[in-house]
Amino acid sequence: MATAAMRRENPEALVTGRAARLAIRRNAHSGPTSGLAPGFVQANLAILPHALAEDFLQFCRRNPKPCPLIGVSAPGDPRIPELADDLDIRTDLPRYRVWRDGTLVDEPGDIIKYWRDDLITFAIGCSFSFEQALLDGGIELRHMTCNCTVPMYRTAVETAPAGPFHGPLVVSMRPMKPADAIRAVQITTRFPSVHGAPVHLGKPESIGIKDIAKPDWGDAVPIHDDEIPVFWACGVTPQSVIMAVKPEFCITHYPGAMLVTDRRNTEFAIM
Amino acid sequence: MATAAMRRENPEALVTGRAARLAIRRNAHSGPTSGLAPGFVQANLAILPHALAEDFLQFCRRNPKPCPLIGVSAPGDPRIPELADDLDIRTDLPRYRVWRDGTLVDEPGDIIKYWRDDLITFAIGCSFSFEQALLDGGIELRHMTCNCTVPMYRTAVETAPAGPFHGPLVVSMRPMKPADAIRAVQITTRFPSVHGAPVHLGKPESIGIKDIAKPDWGDAVPIHDDEIPVFWACGVTPQSVIMAVKPEFCITHYPGAMLVTDRRNTEFAIM
Repeated sequence: MATAAMRRENPEALVTGRAARLAIRRNAHSGPTSGLAPGFVQANLAILPHALAEDFLQFCRRNPKPCPLIGVSAPGDPRIPELADDLDIRTDLPRYRVWRDGTLVDEPGDIIKYWRDDLITFAIGCSFSFEQALLDGGIELRHMTCNCTVPMYRTAVETAPAGPFHGPLVVSMRPMKPADAIRAVQITTRFPSVHGAPVHLGKPESIGIKDIAKPDWGDAVPIHDDEIPVFWACGVTPQSVIMAVKPEFCITHYPGAMLVTDRRNTEFAIM
Repeated sequence: MATAAMRRENPEALVTGRAARLAIRRNAHSGPTSGLAPGFVQANLAILPHALAEDFLQFCRRNPKPCPLIGVSAPGDPRIPELADDLDIRTDLPRYRVWRDGTLVDEPGDIIKYWRDDLITFAIGCSFSFEQALLDGGIELRHMTCNCTVPMYRTAVETAPAGPFHGPLVVSMRPMKPADAIRAVQITTRFPSVHGAPVHLGKPESIGIKDIAKPDWGDAVPIHDDEIPVFWACGVTPQSVIMAVKPEFCITHYPGAMLVTDRRNTEFAIM
């Protein structure tokens, strides 16, 4: 189950969501999707059996900050017309993770052989969109400066449960000077469907983070003396909640290999 | 110069800006304006000789967060039509402060005898408007809970100078839980003409505040362990900057005795 060597088509050419998906589909790009199709929304993926769909929908509705649903398929239908016309969820991500009873069983480049008529696809907004808006606003993102993965933490804040789905909120953290933190609240408030405004800032201990230098996922980043940590609800939350349920079958994206859509980030700005 | 006993007409009756001004004009109300005409904008007052007007206008334009100008009169004209139809700046505030060469010389109930043909009135937005929006949003304001004056601090942040006007930014501070601080950024961002979003949060030392328990104006308030201090640009900034210039003549409002206008707070919301 070692990661296959990742092939990349010249990313310069993949300037639209459609171009990126078609390259991925014909296996011309199998690496991370970060940097592909600039300006187009990328999404976290969760594919669940129909039996769990209603509860998971409820869970997302009750927890819109960590679980902002931007697309849901019909049962057994590999398309998601609200996100793109030419989209086949079975082939259009670079890599997937297939889970049985909570155990990872495969990391394939497509899921054609795993497809079932009762599967429903959930596309969940991801931080790439609001990060682009922050960068456009001239705000430094430390994990990008450090060329590492954003640090993520399990908090003591419980999500609102629905059916079998329950568990702690996971947050990502970006250190900022206070004036940038205020600007970041303003900028990300415009994007509620991609996690929106921060859920917390300063005082990690208030949300149960004991050691900011030891993230539960991703990499630790330096926080300077004149900075405060700013926390956003993270798309790892639904993944972690799904895994706790150990569904008999489930498919997610491989970390960093997201669904690239035809929707533009700017379409998701509420003002 | 002792404060005269303050008379108050039944504030219940003073439900519009106009009703409040007319009561003040006929000396039926001579106390603080807080609580009068709920929903109507109140303003800080600075009346300066024409010779200083251009520089002061520039100063306000360059420093819109501490000095949000919401009305300016014509020279010698006691009216400000953009703020109210029936408004006479010489009689419509409960109490004034008259200054000569930077020295306080009188605290009269009207300024008819001081009026000059070269005086220009500047009305500057005040925190009452955004505080109402925060209260409407269910956010506690500690100085109100403590029934005291909001704490204000001289910072190490310099304003952008204009002509003789220069000096440090003064901020007001309200302690909040981080989630409330994020909500407060969102709420007050809607009101740029009444100081708008905070200028800083957490880390008072970053803006040169050495001891948060010792405000330069107003009263210290408790900050609980799970709270951070949130700082807004304060209308004391222009007053302090004007006083440093020691103009040959100048009139301001008596602290707490503001100009009540006919404009509604909600009119100043940008969205």
